[in-house]
Amino acid sequence: METIITSPNKTVKIGPDHPFVIIGERINPTGRKLLGKEMAAGNFDRVRQDAIAQVQAGAHMIDINAGIPMADEPGILAEAIQVVQSVVDAPISIDSSIIGALEAGLKAYQGKPLVNSVTGEEDRLEVILPFIAEHKAAVIGVANDASGISHDVDVRFAVAKLIVERAESYGIPREDVIIDPLAMPVGAIPGAGPTLFKLISRISNELGVNTCLGASNVSFGLPARPALNATFLAMAIGAGLTSAITNPLEPEMYKAILGGDVFMNHDDNCQAWIAHNKSKVTEGETGGRRSRRSIRVEQPTN
Amino acid sequence: METIITSPNKTVKIGPDHPFVIIGERINPTGRKLLGKEMAAGNFDRVRQDAIAQVQAGAHMIDINAGIPMADEPGILAEAIQVVQSVVDAPISIDSSIIGALEAGLKAYQGKPLVNSVTGEEDRLEVILPFIAEHKAAVIGVANDASGISHDVDVRFAVAKLIVERAESYGIPREDVIIDPLAMPVGAIPGAGPTLFKLISRISNELGVNTCLGASNVSFGLPARPALNATFLAMAIGAGLTSAITNPLEPEMYKAILGGDVFMNHDDNCQAWIAHNKSKVTEGETGGRRSRRSIRVEQPTN
Repeated sequence: METIITSPNKTVKIGPDHPFVIIGERINPTGRKLLGKEMAAGNFDRVRQDAIAQVQAGAHMIDINAGIPMADEPGILAEAIQVVQSVVDAPISIDSSIIGALEAGLKAYQGKPLVNSVTGEEDRLEVILPFIAEHKAAVIGVANDASGISHDVDVRFAVAKLIVERAESYGIPREDVIIDPLAMPVGAIPGAGPTLFKLISRISNELGVNTCLGASNVSFGLPARPALNATFLAMAIGAGLTSAITNPLEPEMYKAILGGDVFMNHDDNCQAWIAHNKSKVTEGETGGRRSRRSIRVEQPTN
Repeated sequence: METIITSPNKTVKIGPDHPFVIIGERINPTGRKLLGKEMAAGNFDRVRQDAIAQVQAGAHMIDINAGIPMADEPGILAEAIQVVQSVVDAPISIDSSIIGALEAGLKAYQGKPLVNSVTGEEDRLEVILPFIAEHKAAVIGVANDASGISHDVDVRFAVAKLIVERAESYGIPREDVIIDPLAMPVGAIPGAGPTLFKLISRISNELGVNTCLGASNVSFGLPARPALNATFLAMAIGAGLTSAITNPLEPEMYKAILGGDVFMNHDDNCQAWIAHNKSKVTEGETGGRRSRRSIRVEQPTN
């Protein structure tokens, strides 16, 4: 299986035979009030900076979310996409649940984007999937439905299967559907880890599709979140995860991903690992990267 | 499956329903010339200190190796065991391939030890296994035979199976055999990671036995070894690994193990993770622990 996402100058391949794909999570006003305020006011300086910084830090793609209360989401999303495409080649994940915003985003986007996301809810499937098929985009299918997020592996797997099959019925090839098995906060839901690893494995092996998840919320409410997130991501990669929406500016997270590539045999002669760690000025910081302090100030607080 | 190892005052349970078991690797003269010299001269001060430091850092068991060229291995091993048992309650992994040394070690040991190790070589099986059965010890079976270490999952699995079945034929219950699937340096053997994760999973699921490995050699020859080892260990724990011979004094390694317990649902209410990270004085260092600098000076160079 291989999901192909493009921009005019870059093609990203997601799949079990490729290095892990990092989708930079930073351009998202959820928990970043200042960013949301600026975007709503038509100031995209921070969006531009965040796109560049994430790509420099190792992001292969950039997620863009413009969900700002009381604001013109379609217009802001479209403009953010144009701004990001003017400064980086990385293909984009267009992140909205509003069909009007997705329409505006897809119209503005140059290339084949990833649409983030559709759930297994009937009314969402009916609206989003024909739209994905029409635009020949790829889509993230999130493994919950109208009944919520089940703690039962079989139930959540069934939702994933439904999304993949329904997408096919609309003419969307299986390789253009990426399933998000849903990473739950482990502090609140004790069995979240084993459930998730089983889901990743079953979705990969039984449905033959790629997987993606938001890798920063698993540690919600716990101390030392970057270290915990990094351990989680390493385990998820081992279980077969092929992409994540995450923050490559977190040094521990980025190391876990590069290390994951080494042990999945996706880093020829360990070149990427060696290059990353030889260029280090001090532990946990690379030359071209913003300091951890400046990143942390802006981090989502959720 | 549950492997039980004991000392007079402590019982350690290894298994998929228990927190990951850390067997401290430090008391091993391989690559530690000064330690070897001192042990050969009858000076066990460093052995004593290393035992205490590893237990304070989180080791559940202590591995003791006395393989010093031209020295009296049986006598030194027996004395080291007595010294360690006089200062810590942690049960011991008696590490030798020499039957005379194992005999002396088992005679000196109080409790039910783990013997590290027997390979799948016929002449080793015939000598070590009856001895394990007689002493009602547990044993680590290493998945290589006279033909060497195969890169083929099926071949290495067959060696593991042979060891487990042969042990049973000598009356050693399956739960007293722990298989070491052999972690190879990923810099030299590109497919080492996927091979190993598959082996851990098959050995756990198909043979129903516990697994253990030396987790520090996978990164041989590569930069940033602690970070790479930590990522590896997280992935191996996710694949089902239940114990490792490793260095809990490495903060990144210890965090990966505690994080692994969180995501395997082996840390009730994340208590161990919270306690470890709340007690931190500064990132990567805990109050009661020796500084990283002093540890690094003494690290094995292999």
